[in-house]
Amino acid sequence: MTNDPKSYMRAALKQAEAAASLGEVPVGAVVVKNGEIISAAHNLVETNHDVTVHAEILAIRRAGEKLGSWRLDGCELFVTLEPCPMCIGAILLSRLDTLYFGAYDEKFGAVGSNFNLADSGLPRAVKVISGLMEEECSSLLTEFFEAKRRRG
Amino acid sequence: MTNDPKSYMRAALKQAEAAASLGEVPVGAVVVKNGEIISAAHNLVETNHDVTVHAEILAIRRAGEKLGSWRLDGCELFVTLEPCPMCIGAILLSRLDTLYFGAYDEKFGAVGSNFNLADSGLPRAVKVISGLMEEECSSLLTEFFEAKRRRG
Repeated sequence: MTNDPKSYMRAALKQAEAAASLGEVPVGAVVVKNGEIISAAHNLVETNHDVTVHAEILAIRRAGEKLGSWRLDGCELFVTLEPCPMCIGAILLSRLDTLYFGAYDEKFGAVGSNFNLADSGLPRAVKVISGLMEEECSSLLTEFFEAKRRRG
Repeated sequence: MTNDPKSYMRAALKQAEAAASLGEVPVGAVVVKNGEIISAAHNLVETNHDVTVHAEILAIRRAGEKLGSWRLDGCELFVTLEPCPMCIGAILLSRLDTLYFGAYDEKFGAVGSNFNLADSGLPRAVKVISGLMEEECSSLLTEFFEAKRRRG
C-alpha cells in the first residue's frame, strides 16, 4: 500500500505506453481503493472499433466487476489525460471520490479546459487534482502524434 | 425501410420495456443507418455492475461492431430519455448525424435540461430532435419508479 499519488500515475502511464504500442492514442487509467490498484486500462478505440472504450470507461467497468457493484465510493481514479465529456460523465455516475489527471486536453477536455463538468450543478460532483505529472503524460501524447505525422 | 421517426422510437421503447422487466431503469436506444436499425440496446447498469452501460453506450458499441468502425457518420440514434453527460459525450465522439430523444431528464439531462453539450463549442456537434413521443417515454419511467416505491 502506498499513498504517493505519483506511483498511481506512473501505473496509469504504463497503461498509456501499452496503448501506444497498439497504435492507440496513449491514455491510461487506474482505479485505486484503500491504496490498492483495483483496475487498470488503456484506450482501445481503434482496436475494438468502439468509441466508448476510453481508458477511464474501461477502468471504471473493471473496478465495478472487481467490486461486484457499480458504486465506486471510496475510490480514486488516476488518468494521464483530462477526461472528455463522456469520461467525466461516467466518473460522476460512478460516485468516485477523487479524480487525478495529468495532461490537459484543449480539444475535448471537460474538467477545466473547455468547461468543468466535475462540479457543474448536476446532482453529483467529484474532487479533482489536475496536472499531476503533467509533463510526462503530455510528452507521451506529443511523441505519439509526432511519430504518426512522420509516418504520414 | 421506413422513414417514420416514430417507428424507430417505438423500437427504442421496446428496448426500454425489456430493461424494466430486468429491474433496470427503462431506457432504450437504437441506431439507424439508411432507414435500417443496425443496433438496439437497453440500460444494463444493475445487471452488469457497470455504470457505463447506459442504452446509448451499448447501442453505439454494437453499431461500431456491426460496421467494423467506430465512426457512425450517416447514422441516427433514437433514445427514450435525454442523454446524460456521458452519453452525449459518446454521441459526439461517434460522429452520429442526428440524435432523437423522448423524455426530458431534469436530473442528469445534458442536452437542454441542465446544459446543452450537443453544441457547446467542442470540435464536434450533433443535430438534436427532442421530445419525440415524450409522453410514452416518460410514462414508462414514471410507472417504473412508482412501482419501485410501492415495493419499498
